[in-house]
Amino acid sequence: MRKIPVNRYPIFVDQGLSSLRGELARLGGPFYLLTNAKVHRLWRKALRPVIGEVPILKILDGEEHKNLKTVEGVYHQLLKQRVDRHGVLLLLGGGVVGDLGGYVASTFLRGIRFVQIPTTLVGQVDSSIGGKVGVDLPEGKNLVGSFYHPAFVYANIQFLTTLARRDLLGGLAEVLKYGVIQHADFFRWVVKKKENIFERNLDTLQRVVQVSAATKAAIVSQDEKESGLRMVLNFGHTFGHALEKLTRYRGYTHGEAVAIGMVIAARLSRKLGYCQPETEQEIIEGITRVGLPTRVPPFKSAHWLQAIGVDKKRHQGKIRFVFVKKLGQVVIESTAPERLVKLL
Amino acid sequence: MRKIPVNRYPIFVDQGLSSLRGELARLGGPFYLLTNAKVHRLWRKALRPVIGEVPILKILDGEEHKNLKTVEGVYHQLLKQRVDRHGVLLLLGGGVVGDLGGYVASTFLRGIRFVQIPTTLVGQVDSSIGGKVGVDLPEGKNLVGSFYHPAFVYANIQFLTTLARRDLLGGLAEVLKYGVIQHADFFRWVVKKKENIFERNLDTLQRVVQVSAATKAAIVSQDEKESGLRMVLNFGHTFGHALEKLTRYRGYTHGEAVAIGMVIAARLSRKLGYCQPETEQEIIEGITRVGLPTRVPPFKSAHWLQAIGVDKKRHQGKIRFVFVKKLGQVVIESTAPERLVKLL
Repeated sequence: MRKIPVNRYPIFVDQGLSSLRGELARLGGPFYLLTNAKVHRLWRKALRPVIGEVPILKILDGEEHKNLKTVEGVYHQLLKQRVDRHGVLLLLGGGVVGDLGGYVASTFLRGIRFVQIPTTLVGQVDSSIGGKVGVDLPEGKNLVGSFYHPAFVYANIQFLTTLARRDLLGGLAEVLKYGVIQHADFFRWVVKKKENIFERNLDTLQRVVQVSAATKAAIVSQDEKESGLRMVLNFGHTFGHALEKLTRYRGYTHGEAVAIGMVIAARLSRKLGYCQPETEQEIIEGITRVGLPTRVPPFKSAHWLQAIGVDKKRHQGKIRFVFVKKLGQVVIESTAPERLVKLL
Repeated sequence: MRKIPVNRYPIFVDQGLSSLRGELARLGGPFYLLTNAKVHRLWRKALRPVIGEVPILKILDGEEHKNLKTVEGVYHQLLKQRVDRHGVLLLLGGGVVGDLGGYVASTFLRGIRFVQIPTTLVGQVDSSIGGKVGVDLPEGKNLVGSFYHPAFVYANIQFLTTLARRDLLGGLAEVLKYGVIQHADFFRWVVKKKENIFERNLDTLQRVVQVSAATKAAIVSQDEKESGLRMVLNFGHTFGHALEKLTRYRGYTHGEAVAIGMVIAARLSRKLGYCQPETEQEIIEGITRVGLPTRVPPFKSAHWLQAIGVDKKRHQGKIRFVFVKKLGQVVIESTAPERLVKLL
């Protein structure tokens, strides 16, 4: 087991569940498991000896259920179970369970404890780390939420062995992002190791998760409330989010949208002189080689702008955009979205 | 103007709005006013020179609208106004605007700034202070919320001159509570000055607000997350909340329910030997003399218990209850609710 410290809580990365039991005992319950039907079916047998007989709360899977209606349903389930301020939510699942469950934990009875047990690659390397919890509104993703930290994060690499290829791919977009923003060598290593990754080699996957989680943890520890530095994590996400919105969260997985967003960000960085053509090319090639999409769909400028418009990062007509300077180094600049969209 | 420091933000108490303008300028906008129709009608002319032309968001008045549906409506209004992370919500109104608006501020875009401008006595002496924001669920009051602090609180005593007598009375229940838990002299002074209070004497009201706000501020500054000390503020509220629930939030104002809850708490304190009969008598007489109700309606034990059951303070069959030892001094004890209800 590897333990990665974040400011206020640790991330455990392990190949199995054996070390989870001790961490939960240290924390103390009562525990309540929040998950979805599919994840529960896959892992309940393995979890039984670790967490024992605990009440199970289920939510529907899929980003379309990451909304206030599902949140309200969970509140009612919690009250039915008579959960009080001492209760601990164990969030077993992907980004939806983690984001929504964390938001419920942050607001139910003004905040109860919770543990992130992410079962997807994107959950283990990204969404479970950093204290951002929340849900979507019809107007956009993650428009409602809080900054609220889990007691700890437990990333079991074995969970990744049952993931569909497309879900693993989705997580790889965020993994490659860490490479682009801070670790050129890691970016190249991931691209080279893509066969091992898709063969679900546990040691390769563990390194993927450890480096990614440690990168994100280091960044968010320095900037908990996203006032500056943390924004580098947004690389590829301005257009990624816009693309998800334009396709009504149906055309692409989050990771696929981010991959295309990174292609756009790399292209804009080259066109505006932030990076050399070789950097753009290496990023796009890496994204292509792991199997993520790179083709930018031809939406009209007005549609792109509208989709970016309700982005949380908008400020007085300008947005803060993350450009790449070279592989492993990015820069944040305030810029008018019109200027970017014109160059697409 | 009097400035009362809380841990992280100040409370300003003034007879007028003139000093608000400078405080807002210091904070910086853009500002958005959240209020209800009645308060807006009463004060918009006085506010205009202070806050200028700002977008107005309105919610419906009344505890029955302090729910997630109203919250969602405000999110949509904010997005329609294109409020971004730099926006500041000015919350002008009573407990509903303050609690719900503060909750919206704590969750919209993962938290934006807000200013409490309470217009009711209960708002100025209680609900605007301490960072507790939230809304009700059908199962109970304030079951969803967060701890989130305003940039500052601005209590304009003039607002109290337009309050209905019953609303002023409601606030007096909380004022008397501060006397019971910490300031015997203040309790006696408030009872003696009740004529001046109802004549809306500004200097008397200012002292009422200042002492009350300072008392609450001192307590919550020492215990932000309600782990211990802060619970003394709950005096009279266990049964007060139960009574509101049993009468479906229609029979009594919050303050009236708390007054009866304090009568119950004083009676239980005497019956269980925590205080002398004289203390119980002085509390009940004070409550009676200012004009608050003291009669405990004859609900069945099972109904009281059920109403207390979903209380946030419940823990493993016991609740933490605030007993009075003598006027100005209380004690918190873990006790089975059945034991208390039997003695009603």
